[in-house]
Amino acid sequence: MDQAIGRKRWAIAEGYIPGWSHGPAPELESHETCCILNAGDAPAQVRITVYFEDREPAGPYRVEVPPRRTLHLRFNELRDPEPIPKETPYASVIESDVPIVVQHTRLDSRQAENALMSTIAYPCE
Amino acid sequence: MDQAIGRKRWAIAEGYIPGWSHGPAPELESHETCCILNAGDAPAQVRITVYFEDREPAGPYRVEVPPRRTLHLRFNELRDPEPIPKETPYASVIESDVPIVVQHTRLDSRQAENALMSTIAYPCE
Amino acid sequence: MDQAIGRKRWAIAEGYIPGWSHGPAPELESHETCCILNAGDAPAQVRITVYFEDREPAGPYRVEVPPRRTLHLRFNELRDPEPIPKETPYASVIESDVPIVVQHTRLDSRQAENALMSTIAYPCE
Amino acid sequence: MDQAIGRKRWAIAEGYIPGWSHGPAPELESHETCCILNAGDAPAQVRITVYFEDREPAGPYRVEVPPRRTLHLRFNELRDPEPIPKETPYASVIESDVPIVVQHTRLDSRQAENALMSTIAYPCE
Repeated sequence: MDQAIGRKRWAIAEGYIPGWSHGPAPELESHETCCILNAGDAPAQVRITVYFEDREPAGPYRVEVPPRRTLHLRFNELRDPEPIPKETPYASVIESDVPIVVQHTRLDSRQAENALMSTIAYPCE
Repeated sequence: MDQAIGRKRWAIAEGYIPGWSHGPAPELESHETCCILNAGDAPAQVRITVYFEDREPAGPYRVEVPPRRTLHLRFNELRDPEPIPKETPYASVIESDVPIVVQHTRLDSRQAENALMSTIAYPCE
Repeated sequence: MDQAIGRKRWAIAEGYIPGWSHGPAPELESHETCCILNAGDAPAQVRITVYFEDREPAGPYRVEVPPRRTLHLRFNELRDPEPIPKETPYASVIESDVPIVVQHTRLDSRQAENALMSTIAYPCE
Repeated sequence: MDQAIGRKRWAIAEGYIPGWSHGPAPELESHETCCILNAGDAPAQVRITVYFEDREPAGPYRVEVPPRRTLHLRFNELRDPEPIPKETPYASVIESDVPIVVQHTRLDSRQAENALMSTIAYPCE
């Protein structure tokens, strides 16, 4: 049974990579993650566009998520076509050629103890 | 391709600006943010109405989000027509003339280490 | 213009009132909140049913949210027909005679620094 | 009145069991929870499939949620057919024969103070 579930376009209005960290890396390095689930039987070709407050969007960033796999992509590690600057508000749109599910998580360890947040992304029609 | 995505009306039932902070401002000042993404090609005229427990609503607060931009608006910084009081439960409705995506985030640094929460807002029909 | 928005039935699958607290009460007392927004012009008669892992549901708990008001209801403070026990997993269904919007938040101050979480509730069809 | 509410299939794209903990167990042991509400009058037969980044999915894990009950299931405690490894990104799909509501929560106590996150899961069509 093909388990392809979700939507082909998602949006995350919040985005911010904290500027510094406490604790051992990489586990407790401040980071922001785009968690993608491809539960179907075909690979997902994913394009991410990143929006800012004061300049044109960056991207698309391209990743492939194999069938029946998840990918927890750290925005911090995106390099091509350009890194996402720290301490800068951004937002993102995630598009795929097959249905996927997207969740957004941040770990902020700027102070001695870490803080977490997570939310389902917005599933576009 | 016009990427206008989202809805024209959103609601956030939670709202509370903590009364004090630890750590360097503005990054670690306690705050509450309304993150707005306008992925389309037309500017978004946004109106925010703020609801309280024991008085008539405040607003509308008006902001413009340019095309292909995000705005991470701190409720703490709203001034016109009136500031939102600290340590007071509130809720908000965000309306736009074009589709947008809205997410709600709070950073609470009242104690020595900060705490975070975030959720997608409610996309109204 | 009547701004009645949302749904008449919502569900929150998570619920847990921490057993102890650090920091000044009531701001930093561990608590769990059901944030309700009634943006419409009629009062909302709200009924909350609380589900447990090992007994029949409690309630209904009844509250009224006036027109154009929010209510940030602490589950800890519910008394009638019975208090909700601490340190006990629960879930809740929130029903209203007019459309409302519901969000769920927990502040956990069991350790020296507080932790926060929040999510939109599930809007039932 | 039968209160069966929710959906028969849900997805959680985020999943990660922290590798260590501070504070008294089990309350403050790092854990990840799948909160399930079965508000209906029939028992829910639930199947959970867990997806990874680099291997085929695990499961199904099977649990029953009785009528009018909630279950706050810790992913850490799943054993059959295999435990979920710590410090490993995963995602999950939750399927039921009757409608349920699903929410995802993590308590991370790797540092001295705990951090929390929670979100409604994605309700599949």
